[in-house]
Amino acid sequence: MDLHLDNILKDLQKDDIQAYLLTQFTNVEYISNYKPTSFAFCIIKDDPIIYASSMDMEIANKNSKIDVRKYESFEVMVRELKDDGIKDLAIEPTLPFSTYEKLENEFTISSKTYIDKQRMIKTPLEIDKITKATEIAQKSFLELDILNNTGAEKEIAFDLVRLMIGNGALKESFDTIVASGSSSSLPHAVPGDKQLMQPILVDWGAIFEGYCSDNTRTMVYTEAQQEIWDIVAEAHDKAIKAIKPGLKCSEIDKVARDIITDYGYGDKFIHSTGHSLGLDIHETPGFSLRDDTKIENGMVITVEPGIYLKGEFGVRLEDTVAINNKANVIGDLPLMID
Amino acid sequence: MDLHLDNILKDLQKDDIQAYLLTQFTNVEYISNYKPTSFAFCIIKDDPIIYASSMDMEIANKNSKIDVRKYESFEVMVRELKDDGIKDLAIEPTLPFSTYEKLENEFTISSKTYIDKQRMIKTPLEIDKITKATEIAQKSFLELDILNNTGAEKEIAFDLVRLMIGNGALKESFDTIVASGSSSSLPHAVPGDKQLMQPILVDWGAIFEGYCSDNTRTMVYTEAQQEIWDIVAEAHDKAIKAIKPGLKCSEIDKVARDIITDYGYGDKFIHSTGHSLGLDIHETPGFSLRDDTKIENGMVITVEPGIYLKGEFGVRLEDTVAINNKANVIGDLPLMID
Repeated sequence: MDLHLDNILKDLQKDDIQAYLLTQFTNVEYISNYKPTSFAFCIIKDDPIIYASSMDMEIANKNSKIDVRKYESFEVMVRELKDDGIKDLAIEPTLPFSTYEKLENEFTISSKTYIDKQRMIKTPLEIDKITKATEIAQKSFLELDILNNTGAEKEIAFDLVRLMIGNGALKESFDTIVASGSSSSLPHAVPGDKQLMQPILVDWGAIFEGYCSDNTRTMVYTEAQQEIWDIVAEAHDKAIKAIKPGLKCSEIDKVARDIITDYGYGDKFIHSTGHSLGLDIHETPGFSLRDDTKIENGMVITVEPGIYLKGEFGVRLEDTVAINNKANVIGDLPLMID
Repeated sequence: MDLHLDNILKDLQKDDIQAYLLTQFTNVEYISNYKPTSFAFCIIKDDPIIYASSMDMEIANKNSKIDVRKYESFEVMVRELKDDGIKDLAIEPTLPFSTYEKLENEFTISSKTYIDKQRMIKTPLEIDKITKATEIAQKSFLELDILNNTGAEKEIAFDLVRLMIGNGALKESFDTIVASGSSSSLPHAVPGDKQLMQPILVDWGAIFEGYCSDNTRTMVYTEAQQEIWDIVAEAHDKAIKAIKPGLKCSEIDKVARDIITDYGYGDKFIHSTGHSLGLDIHETPGFSLRDDTKIENGMVITVEPGIYLKGEFGVRLEDTVAINNKANVIGDLPLMID
């Protein structure tokens, strides 16, 4: 029996629930090794089953560790589940309302985070894949030689993706950000047609065997930019050093935020300090003011403080850490690029 | 008053509902011109408001036609809406269950498709953008000169994206498919490391000013492949000719499916005949057996019959049509590439 699946079955048994419906693509992939391309209903129960679309049958049969059945209609699926004796059905918190609405009269529904909780703790194999994704992304960044690149922001972003794919990535793990000059003050800037200005902020990652990486570097040029860079680097380093199992995620956010606030830039740090990643680029828990999840070994989380001076420039520095008694930074790309 | 917003307000008034919550990024973009990058709550009411995340405030203030307020917490937002006298709240069918759960004790909730229905009918400006996206994608495909390309599937897919961006696209509208040889029997194949085999199936599209394009061409080589290609081309052409306002979408699916079935390949046509597109690559309605939506002027829908011979090869041919009394194919790329 597969470990991931086995743990979920134990959760169900403990709560006396007969079945758990998964529809989120990466949840189905996590449990079965088959990632849907259009839609799928994966039912975790004593004899788990995936209802796959006709067009996915070939790939589902090839990749899934769980039995696959062709989806005929929602009604047929509900009837088969009821015939199987299922009365209590757990759902993902992300299930669309329209699907919930069709289920609520058929089953006793409860929203459960079994799968999110399990995905919080990565296995060594998962950490290996995130590490490989990070290595591909960092190697590609160095090959990009951005300081000598004369292309426009969007061309450079594109070159970086091309390098990552050439180095073995499936694709980028999110829309690559190359933001320079005043655009760097937008945390999620879209690369533009302009040639690089200063400073240069790059936020990028690769996907390797389904798993994401995530890094940010900012290259600064003036004294004013360097001053901000130094504050962000201090927040980055001290937050990473502060991480240890048993602390709350919010306490790590506070470490980074307090440093930036002490320098007078608290209101310019306009996002949380980090997020978990894995099959998705944003997973739980996160280093945020509101997240009181306890840090545990096996979590893989980004640390990415930033200061954004609207109309002027922004600086963000991001590494991804794997937690094993302390926070181990994944990859070896220096913070300072020169 | 903006037309899109005005129509939704009329829908609300008709149903005696005070407010409509939008969270889907492209729905928020459709109404406000601001596309969230992390999350946003857009409340359509007499004085509409968008609660944006701190990190989106700069871009939201720049792009949004609707007033923007900084999101503090879910509780604050709910309180402000109640202070505003809101008791009945409409939601999108796609709203995640966890958000619904937090709202259901505060408001009388009803799931409404106002926005999906309005997005079904494109304005001339929207059709112009889809047309431009299609032109960029088709021009790039011709520049790719695929029949003389010696790269691996994934390299060719990447070259096509690079060309689209060079020609003015923001990015690809979905993961570009270059599938050759037996991989072409997977409708959603992932481009591989192998050099091109025969036949070659390419399914690709561009995004221009937020709007998607979608085309598929299959280049065949043997008599057996040509025979299948001819059947798919006949289904493609006759389905397009059959489209007219007033018919049901399912009737168009039937035209294509009947032709393929008459040739004995009904069970090898494993998806529906088409889907609408716009800000999203998959919108409603679709040319599917189960969709009885009446065809109307202003709809923009793909027609993409296919035959998939597992382990051998597949053929799909796809164009996007804009409906104005009849179906007008967008773009002028021939079905037969040589």
